[in-house]
Amino acid sequence: METVWVVGVGMTRFAKSDRSLRSLAVEATAAAVEDAEMQAGDIEAAFVGNGAAGLVTGQEMIKGQLMLRGAGIEGIPIFNIENACASASSALHLGWQAVASEMHDVVLCLGAEKLTHEDKTVGMRAISAAADVELLAERAAALGAEDAEDAAKRSYFMDVYAELTRAYMARSGATAEDFAAVAVKNQHNGGLNPRAQYGGDFTIEEILASRTIVEPLHLLMCSPISDGAAAVVLMSDAAKRRFGRPGARIRASVVVSGSRHDDSDPLAGSTGRAAAAAFEEAELEPTEIDFAELHDASAPAELMLYEQVGFASAGEGPALLASGKTALAGSMPVNASGGLLSKGHPIGATGLAQICELTWQLRGDAGARQVEGAKVGLAQNGGGWIEGDSAAMAVHILSSK
Amino acid sequence: METVWVVGVGMTRFAKSDRSLRSLAVEATAAAVEDAEMQAGDIEAAFVGNGAAGLVTGQEMIKGQLMLRGAGIEGIPIFNIENACASASSALHLGWQAVASEMHDVVLCLGAEKLTHEDKTVGMRAISAAADVELLAERAAALGAEDAEDAAKRSYFMDVYAELTRAYMARSGATAEDFAAVAVKNQHNGGLNPRAQYGGDFTIEEILASRTIVEPLHLLMCSPISDGAAAVVLMSDAAKRRFGRPGARIRASVVVSGSRHDDSDPLAGSTGRAAAAAFEEAELEPTEIDFAELHDASAPAELMLYEQVGFASAGEGPALLASGKTALAGSMPVNASGGLLSKGHPIGATGLAQICELTWQLRGDAGARQVEGAKVGLAQNGGGWIEGDSAAMAVHILSSK
Repeated sequence: METVWVVGVGMTRFAKSDRSLRSLAVEATAAAVEDAEMQAGDIEAAFVGNGAAGLVTGQEMIKGQLMLRGAGIEGIPIFNIENACASASSALHLGWQAVASEMHDVVLCLGAEKLTHEDKTVGMRAISAAADVELLAERAAALGAEDAEDAAKRSYFMDVYAELTRAYMARSGATAEDFAAVAVKNQHNGGLNPRAQYGGDFTIEEILASRTIVEPLHLLMCSPISDGAAAVVLMSDAAKRRFGRPGARIRASVVVSGSRHDDSDPLAGSTGRAAAAAFEEAELEPTEIDFAELHDASAPAELMLYEQVGFASAGEGPALLASGKTALAGSMPVNASGGLLSKGHPIGATGLAQICELTWQLRGDAGARQVEGAKVGLAQNGGGWIEGDSAAMAVHILSSK
Repeated sequence: METVWVVGVGMTRFAKSDRSLRSLAVEATAAAVEDAEMQAGDIEAAFVGNGAAGLVTGQEMIKGQLMLRGAGIEGIPIFNIENACASASSALHLGWQAVASEMHDVVLCLGAEKLTHEDKTVGMRAISAAADVELLAERAAALGAEDAEDAAKRSYFMDVYAELTRAYMARSGATAEDFAAVAVKNQHNGGLNPRAQYGGDFTIEEILASRTIVEPLHLLMCSPISDGAAAVVLMSDAAKRRFGRPGARIRASVVVSGSRHDDSDPLAGSTGRAAAAAFEEAELEPTEIDFAELHDASAPAELMLYEQVGFASAGEGPALLASGKTALAGSMPVNASGGLLSKGHPIGATGLAQICELTWQLRGDAGARQVEGAKVGLAQNGGGWIEGDSAAMAVHILSSK
């Protein structure tokens, strides 16, 4: 298989925005092309991730072609890829496959999402369409009117996370203070990232004082509604030499779907399977990872993910956090970018925003949030929910050479 | 590159149906798996095409994972692929790439669509979302109330086809009778296909007597609203030997996107470019094709496609039809299945339904509509519309060995 490099990266700031999906996508694409010091016309194929534009803007189809037309890209193969919140990393995987297999030398992977809408319930309903909408309708019908109205104000996924969190607390002894400490860490990091939606220095008490979304999750433990786009240019070894630019090497690219499994075993679910496959593909151990971007759509998720990816033993997520190892100044920083909690979570863009962060860190371009000695990074990005597991799960490992 | 074979094929009957999208998808998947004499558990990855479920059922995301769960398939990599009416052939292309590149040995490609809805305008609006919905909104706003109401009763694509047809008539001298003759041919073929939505023996006068949708298109010159699903199992050479089943060999798999071009040159648009690339990949000439499935979403399109694919010179589409060569008993039958006009057009399933037909024909399993001496077949499938060209265009060439 051909070695594949991430050569150009670009992303918009993530934010609640008045801008159109296309405008965001064009900005990220142009930034990635410029970062690679190439022309849009050098791109041979494009893989475009988006989750919810059909429900938010009505543009159910040919989203990528319309986005890329605005960036001056037409004629080439363009594929619209959807895997809910893992849409962008699924687009990356298929772009990687196109270069690794020597079918193309230079491809663009783009993820873009617009979730804000003048009707605030639209974004929440759109995110909930990453679960089985037939089951959601049954669930809503079974609730009383008041409870149903209450539930409609939040995404279904926060109900899922709340349930997972209660089970995790029982299993590991994790506390609300632990979850707040994740939010404190990631908001601190986001404050150092000019592209993050939020960020700043909070206390544990401030996080716990934010309003309850659904027990035990408080507002500042939940990723926000965001708009944004992220893009990367992938190149073969030969193309990278031709363009003469530095890059980050893709050591592993794995996407799996979820399955019914034993919840009490952190390694049995889709994250555990995808991470194990990625470590095997990269011929690396979890201890060899210098830093990671994990899918902290809720703060407790980061602790569970420590265990599922293999950074901590079962039940040891809170201890890993408490050790300071995953803080920005620690020996294996997690979510140096601010993560989904602080950087924001435009669902179809998130996976590639993680890859932008890995690339900046590996090139030493991450400014105030630079991870010292960043040589190998891991990104984990999940999407959707079916019967107790993510519908799609992606793990990528990149290295500086 | 590894040789890739279509080994198992399956499709539902296309029809206006009371059944759910999932039920249709499960039937097609199970039929393809059974046809390959394998188990669902042998599938290593799946590529699922759908166009409009977000707008029709609200299931905007993780469509493929939910469809395949019903067929007992979970855990493996699953990708949701959208390219409007070319969604299924785009899924096929990416599945082909996964096997051709030796990343997988056995993959499933599935296309499924449900367009019927108790509100009849939903299907029309969904199909129109394969164009730029911002432009459609501007266009509707510019129309008077009565014209806007009238336009909303048909898909935007019939307006596009009507405009293309008027230009084609001026350029080629094609007449309404020529278009009716395409419908007569394809309805005849569909009458021999147990999976076709319609079909039967019509006269040219009967086609012309059906109501006008938009000049010069009559109802029986337009593909209908349909529900349905089609699936194929792709295998590497090694896997095909292991399972010991006959198959159809993929000689070329090409997907391109549209671009601004000179309309008067039939070879300049996306179909011409995709077909030329496919003939080059297959190392074949148009004269070596024994039969073809072309994207006759409207009857006049088939004549234009004769020229764009390279079966006829510019302006010679009507003459090729009149020669009888493309009739079922001719030397190069086109749309032996009935085509989109008669078989039906569940948009995200159409491209793989064409591949099912090619495979049945190449195996000699096409029953009353069997093409004599079918050794090499071509399928052409387009999707979406941007600035005078299809948003996505796929051409596949398959051979019996």
